[in-house]
Amino acid sequence: MEIDVITTLGLVAGALTTIAYLPQMIKTWRSKSAEDLSWTMLITLCVGIILWLVYGAIVHDIPLIAANVVTFAFASVILFLKIRYKPDERE
Amino acid sequence: MEIDVITTLGLVAGALTTIAYLPQMIKTWRSKSAEDLSWTMLITLCVGIILWLVYGAIVHDIPLIAANVVTFAFASVILFLKIRYKPDERE
Repeated sequence: MEIDVITTLGLVAGALTTIAYLPQMIKTWRSKSAEDLSWTMLITLCVGIILWLVYGAIVHDIPLIAANVVTFAFASVILFLKIRYKPDERE
Repeated sequence: MEIDVITTLGLVAGALTTIAYLPQMIKTWRSKSAEDLSWTMLITLCVGIILWLVYGAIVHDIPLIAANVVTFAFASVILFLKIRYKPDERE
Protein backbone atom coordinates (compact mmCIF):
# COMPACT_ATOMS: atom_id res chain seq x y z
CA MET A 1 0.00 0.00 0.00
CA GLU A 2 2.74 2.45 0.97
CA ILE A 3 4.69 1.50 -2.16
CA ASP A 4 1.58 2.39 -4.19
CA VAL A 5 1.41 5.86 -2.63
CA ILE A 6 5.11 6.46 -3.38
CA THR A 7 4.77 5.16 -6.95
CA THR A 8 1.71 7.36 -7.46
CA LEU A 9 3.70 10.36 -6.18
CA GLY A 10 6.43 9.64 -8.74
CA LEU A 11 3.86 9.22 -11.52
CA VAL A 12 2.15 12.51 -10.62
CA ALA A 13 5.54 14.26 -10.53
CA GLY A 14 6.39 12.83 -13.96
CA ALA A 15 2.98 13.76 -15.36
CA LEU A 16 3.36 17.37 -14.17
CA THR A 17 6.88 17.93 -15.51
CA THR A 18 5.76 16.31 -18.80
CA ILE A 19 2.46 18.14 -19.25
CA ALA A 20 3.96 21.51 -18.24
CA TYR A 21 5.03 22.19 -21.84
CA LEU A 22 1.48 21.88 -23.20
CA PRO A 23 0.30 25.32 -21.93
CA GLN A 24 3.57 26.84 -23.22
CA MET A 25 2.93 25.28 -26.63
CA ILE A 26 -0.66 26.62 -26.67
CA LYS A 27 0.44 30.08 -25.50
CA THR A 28 3.16 30.34 -28.14
CA TRP A 29 0.79 29.05 -30.83
CA ARG A 30 -1.85 31.65 -29.93
CA SER A 31 0.40 34.65 -29.31
CA LYS A 32 2.62 33.90 -32.33
CA SER A 33 5.47 35.24 -30.21
CA ALA A 34 8.39 33.24 -28.86
CA GLU A 35 10.90 36.06 -28.46
CA ASP A 36 11.34 35.51 -24.70
CA LEU A 37 11.99 31.78 -25.09
CA SER A 38 15.67 30.83 -25.08
CA TRP A 39 16.97 29.04 -28.18
CA THR A 40 19.58 27.32 -26.03
CA MET A 41 16.93 26.09 -23.58
CA LEU A 42 14.72 24.67 -26.34
CA ILE A 43 17.55 22.98 -28.24
CA THR A 44 19.18 21.61 -25.05
CA LEU A 45 15.79 20.30 -23.88
CA CYS A 46 15.10 18.59 -27.21
CA VAL A 47 18.54 16.94 -27.33
CA GLY A 48 18.24 15.89 -23.66
CA ILE A 49 14.79 14.40 -24.24
CA ILE A 50 16.05 12.45 -27.28
CA LEU A 51 18.88 11.03 -25.12
CA TRP A 52 16.30 10.10 -22.44
CA LEU A 53 14.34 8.28 -25.18
CA VAL A 54 17.44 6.37 -26.32
CA TYR A 55 18.28 5.55 -22.70
CA GLY A 56 14.67 4.47 -22.00
CA ALA A 57 14.68 2.27 -25.11
CA ILE A 58 17.96 0.58 -24.11
CA VAL A 59 16.85 -0.15 -20.54
CA HIS A 60 13.28 -0.97 -21.70
CA ASP A 61 11.68 1.55 -19.33
CA ILE A 62 8.19 2.09 -20.75
CA PRO A 63 7.13 4.96 -18.41
CA LEU A 64 10.38 6.80 -19.21
CA ILE A 65 9.82 6.31 -22.95
CA ALA A 66 6.15 7.35 -22.74
CA ALA A 67 6.87 10.50 -20.70
CA ASN A 68 9.67 11.57 -23.02
CA VAL A 69 7.72 10.92 -26.22
CA VAL A 70 5.02 13.30 -24.93
CA THR A 71 7.54 15.87 -23.69
CA PHE A 72 9.42 15.72 -26.99
CA ALA A 73 6.19 16.30 -28.93
CA PHE A 74 5.50 19.51 -26.97
CA ALA A 75 9.10 20.77 -26.84
CA SER A 76 9.75 20.18 -30.55
CA VAL A 77 6.53 22.02 -31.53
CA ILE A 78 7.58 24.97 -29.31
CA LEU A 79 11.00 24.96 -31.01
CA PHE A 80 9.28 24.83 -34.43
CA LEU A 81 7.06 27.79 -33.44
CA LYS A 82 10.14 29.70 -32.22
CA ILE A 83 11.74 29.15 -35.65
CA ARG A 84 8.51 30.15 -37.43
CA TYR A 85 7.80 33.29 -35.38
CA LYS A 86 11.36 34.56 -35.45
CA PRO A 87 11.26 38.37 -35.40
CA ASP A 88 12.60 40.45 -38.29
CA GLU A 89 16.33 40.75 -38.67
CA ARG A 90 15.85 44.44 -37.90
CA GLU A 91 15.44 43.64 -34.21
CA MET B 1 31.51 -1.75 -19.42
CA GLU B 2 28.30 -1.62 -21.46
CA ILE B 3 26.38 -0.75 -18.29
CA ASP B 4 28.76 2.18 -17.83
CA VAL B 5 28.02 3.50 -21.31
CA ILE B 6 24.27 3.22 -20.71
CA THR B 7 24.54 4.86 -17.27
CA THR B 8 26.62 7.67 -18.77
CA LEU B 9 23.96 8.15 -21.46
CA GLY B 10 21.30 8.51 -18.75
CA LEU B 11 23.47 10.93 -16.77
CA VAL B 12 24.12 13.08 -19.86
CA ALA B 13 20.39 13.08 -20.66
CA GLY B 14 19.62 14.15 -17.09
CA ALA B 15 22.32 16.81 -17.14
CA LEU B 16 20.94 18.30 -20.38
CA THR B 17 17.29 18.43 -19.31
CA THR B 18 18.43 19.93 -15.98
CA ILE B 19 20.87 22.52 -17.31
CA ALA B 20 18.50 23.59 -20.12
CA TYR B 21 16.80 26.09 -17.79
CA LEU B 22 20.05 27.96 -17.06
CA PRO B 23 20.21 29.80 -20.45
CA GLN B 24 16.48 30.60 -20.09
CA MET B 25 17.13 32.06 -16.64
CA ILE B 26 20.06 34.14 -17.97
CA LYS B 27 18.06 35.31 -21.01
CA THR B 28 15.07 36.38 -18.89
CA TRP B 29 17.37 38.07 -16.36
CA ARG B 30 19.12 40.06 -19.11
CA SER B 31 16.12 40.94 -21.28
CA LYS B 32 13.90 41.72 -18.26
CA SER B 33 11.07 40.28 -20.35
CA ALA B 34 9.15 37.09 -19.63
CA GLU B 35 5.94 37.90 -21.48
CA ASP B 36 6.19 34.87 -23.81
CA LEU B 37 6.74 32.42 -20.94
CA SER B 38 3.60 30.59 -19.85
CA TRP B 39 2.56 31.04 -16.20
CA THR B 40 0.97 27.60 -16.28
CA MET B 41 4.17 26.00 -17.58
CA LEU B 42 6.35 27.62 -14.91
CA ILE B 43 3.99 26.85 -12.01
CA THR B 44 3.32 23.28 -13.21
CA LEU B 45 7.07 22.71 -13.64
CA CYS B 46 7.86 24.02 -10.15
CA VAL B 47 5.15 21.90 -8.51
CA GLY B 48 6.25 18.84 -10.52
CA ILE B 49 9.89 19.35 -9.54
CA ILE B 50 8.95 19.68 -5.84
CA LEU B 51 7.04 16.37 -6.10
CA TRP B 52 10.10 14.79 -7.77
CA LEU B 53 12.18 16.04 -4.82
CA VAL B 54 9.75 14.54 -2.29
CA TYR B 55 9.70 11.28 -4.27
CA GLY B 56 13.52 11.26 -4.53
CA ALA B 57 13.82 11.88 -0.78
CA ILE B 58 11.43 9.02 0.05
CA VAL B 59 13.17 6.50 -2.20
CA HIS B 60 16.62 7.89 -1.27
CA ASP B 61 17.62 8.51 -4.88
CA ILE B 62 20.54 10.94 -4.65
CA PRO B 63 20.91 11.63 -8.44
CA LEU B 64 17.16 12.33 -8.68
CA ILE B 65 17.34 14.71 -5.70
CA ALA B 66 20.47 16.46 -7.03
CA ALA B 67 19.05 16.95 -10.53
CA ASN B 68 15.77 18.31 -9.21
CA VAL B 69 17.39 20.65 -6.67
CA VAL B 70 19.31 22.25 -9.57
CA THR B 71 16.27 22.31 -11.88
CA PHE B 72 14.12 23.82 -9.11
CA ALA B 73 16.71 26.55 -8.52
CA PHE B 74 16.58 27.60 -12.19
CA ALA B 75 12.81 27.18 -12.66
CA SER B 76 11.91 29.05 -9.47
CA VAL B 77 14.19 31.98 -10.41
CA ILE B 78 12.55 32.12 -13.87
CA LEU B 79 9.11 32.14 -12.17
CA PHE B 80 10.32 34.90 -9.81
CA LEU B 81 11.56 36.95 -12.81
CA LYS B 82 8.23 36.40 -14.57
CA ILE B 83 6.46 37.82 -11.48
CA ARG B 84 8.93 40.72 -11.27
CA TYR B 85 8.84 41.69 -14.95
CA LYS B 86 5.08 41.42 -15.28
CA PRO B 87 3.94 43.96 -17.89
CA ASP B 88 1.69 46.87 -16.97
CA GLU B 89 -1.99 46.22 -16.41
CA ARG B 90 -2.60 48.33 -19.51
CA GLU B 91 -1.59 45.41 -21.72
